[in-house]
Amino acid sequence: MNAFARRLGLDFPLIQAPMAGVQAHALALAVSEAGALGSLPAAMLAPAALRAELQAMRTQTRRPWALNFFCHAEAPPDDAADAAWRDALRPYYDELGADASKITAASRAPFGDDAAALVEEFRPPVVSFHFGLPAAPLLERVRRSGAFVISSATTVDEARWLEAHGADAVIAQGLEAGGHRGHFLSDDLSRQLGSFALLPQVRRAVRVPVVACGGIADAAGVAAAMALGADGVQVGTAYLLCPEATTSAVHRAALQSEAAAHTAVTNVFTGRAARSIVNRAVRELGPLRAAPHPAFPRAAAAWGPLRAAAEARASGDFSPLWSGQNNSGCRAVPAAEQTRALCRGFEAGSDR
Amino acid sequence: MNAFARRLGLDFPLIQAPMAGVQAHALALAVSEAGALGSLPAAMLAPAALRAELQAMRTQTRRPWALNFFCHAEAPPDDAADAAWRDALRPYYDELGADASKITAASRAPFGDDAAALVEEFRPPVVSFHFGLPAAPLLERVRRSGAFVISSATTVDEARWLEAHGADAVIAQGLEAGGHRGHFLSDDLSRQLGSFALLPQVRRAVRVPVVACGGIADAAGVAAAMALGADGVQVGTAYLLCPEATTSAVHRAALQSEAAAHTAVTNVFTGRAARSIVNRAVRELGPLRAAPHPAFPRAAAAWGPLRAAAEARASGDFSPLWSGQNNSGCRAVPAAEQTRALCRGFEAGSDR
Repeated sequence: MNAFARRLGLDFPLIQAPMAGVQAHALALAVSEAGALGSLPAAMLAPAALRAELQAMRTQTRRPWALNFFCHAEAPPDDAADAAWRDALRPYYDELGADASKITAASRAPFGDDAAALVEEFRPPVVSFHFGLPAAPLLERVRRSGAFVISSATTVDEARWLEAHGADAVIAQGLEAGGHRGHFLSDDLSRQLGSFALLPQVRRAVRVPVVACGGIADAAGVAAAMALGADGVQVGTAYLLCPEATTSAVHRAALQSEAAAHTAVTNVFTGRAARSIVNRAVRELGPLRAAPHPAFPRAAAAWGPLRAAAEARASGDFSPLWSGQNNSGCRAVPAAEQTRALCRGFEAGSDR
Repeated sequence: MNAFARRLGLDFPLIQAPMAGVQAHALALAVSEAGALGSLPAAMLAPAALRAELQAMRTQTRRPWALNFFCHAEAPPDDAADAAWRDALRPYYDELGADASKITAASRAPFGDDAAALVEEFRPPVVSFHFGLPAAPLLERVRRSGAFVISSATTVDEARWLEAHGADAVIAQGLEAGGHRGHFLSDDLSRQLGSFALLPQVRRAVRVPVVACGGIADAAGVAAAMALGADGVQVGTAYLLCPEATTSAVHRAALQSEAAAHTAVTNVFTGRAARSIVNRAVRELGPLRAAPHPAFPRAAAAWGPLRAAAEARASGDFSPLWSGQNNSGCRAVPAAEQTRALCRGFEAGSDR
């Protein structure tokens, strides 16, 4: 296998994309045991839950794995924006009989001292970040733990920035990718590039390994990304139907429906741009709301009771249905089988 | 070479994208003589000029070539929209001392009887369309001339529609592509897919050959597209600096500048969504104007004198600077050399 895989001790240079909210250690373990790099998303886990997940990873595999964090700057509170957003959702609460008094705070904390302490304690072989990199002192603690550090770039400028600020590898996140866009230098979404344009330009701009991400759904996609100069690939959407994922029933149903053909980048669910299957929430409230929409992650809070009420009726109208533009590779098969199928794309691969 | 190339009599299944306004027969001839498929764009040529171009193609090559037409439905006149648009541009006319009285009508006629007669007379081996297909009686005249018919799809639905309505091959136009988006079933730009997502899904949806387009800038891009299942590739932006192209000086300068890193899909120049390098016009007036912006192609008319005045000062501030998202392959080399370089990407290719 290639130098990037050897550096990480992998059989295949494939990373299972961390997907906060739809997976925990079971998916990561299955992928790592299959010879690729499983990822555990920390962003939506409270400290005790994260510790339990980390203990599972530490005790159940000797293969490499990655721990993923969001490292956004926290926006100051904005009660007016929160109130306006609750007002916008009120007709839906009324329609579904949901209880707005049950709204709780949003739960996506950025990487901080507590998280750094967990990295020091559990020493994940790889730590990956989304939305840039944490402040230098925090990043230094991660590096001193021995972790290989990865983060996502959505533009050539971001790739250069990540390399200059200490990333050991860069994920080139094409705009086909599902879930949150990783951009952190500019909010101008017109700067986001498709994988065919982003990947080769990032490859030329940095010396660290480049991992392709966005639109890769099967072995042919893996082979194409490697042909474009990638050192490895990251795949998320294709794992969403695996039994090891915690993807909700409405999310699984949407991925297998005609609706899956239409995704959009929307900020309605969290306040930050993310790709979801277009459902009623995206259609009627988005896809992109301007201020006073609450900043990430506060826009997520107001969805809780509404989403629960809808899902109780088997409706995904108000749930974030994260998906990339190419969900044609989604299969309800064990993650190990999906991993092996994807990794057949490396067979014709180069040994860089 | 593969079945698609053999069917068209090509050495390589590479199509030089037709680029109205920045090329005529010289580029098409050079590409066809190099063993790929050169394309002559008819959309912006008056009948006499088109006839002269066709005579050049007919007399100067025996290799296959393509003739390309726009086949949009003409929008009804809207004097109010035209007037509002001229008002919006007035400050720029004043600033540059341009003469608004010299505005003439826009010059992109859809495929009609006169064009069909030219097809019957000159019998281009391939006729390609943008914005769907012409009405059945017109298309039938093209088919009876013996031409192989191609058109562009930006979604899976459009690919299926084109196959059902008589296209012999479908171009899967990923959103990385420069110039006009080819969409014709829906104006919802969120439905446009990156090449990594569009190409394999179109490949599975239709039985006719599929040509990849959007973000392909070099041999590695060609190899990647073939790995994703393409029968051929179409490349435009990488030819814009070739001496055979008629790309303007300001456009050439922009492509070689830092500005080229940022393109956007904009309707300011023609009324229809097209990808251009972001310049002052796109930044200050776009990228996407809502009605009463004049419909395609009428928005183009008001730019004429302003663009001329700016270009006379070596400014591309008000010119459409068409470019794909991956302009890293632009090289000021003869088109034959560029074609040979791109076609090295087929060397590892499959023989489908």
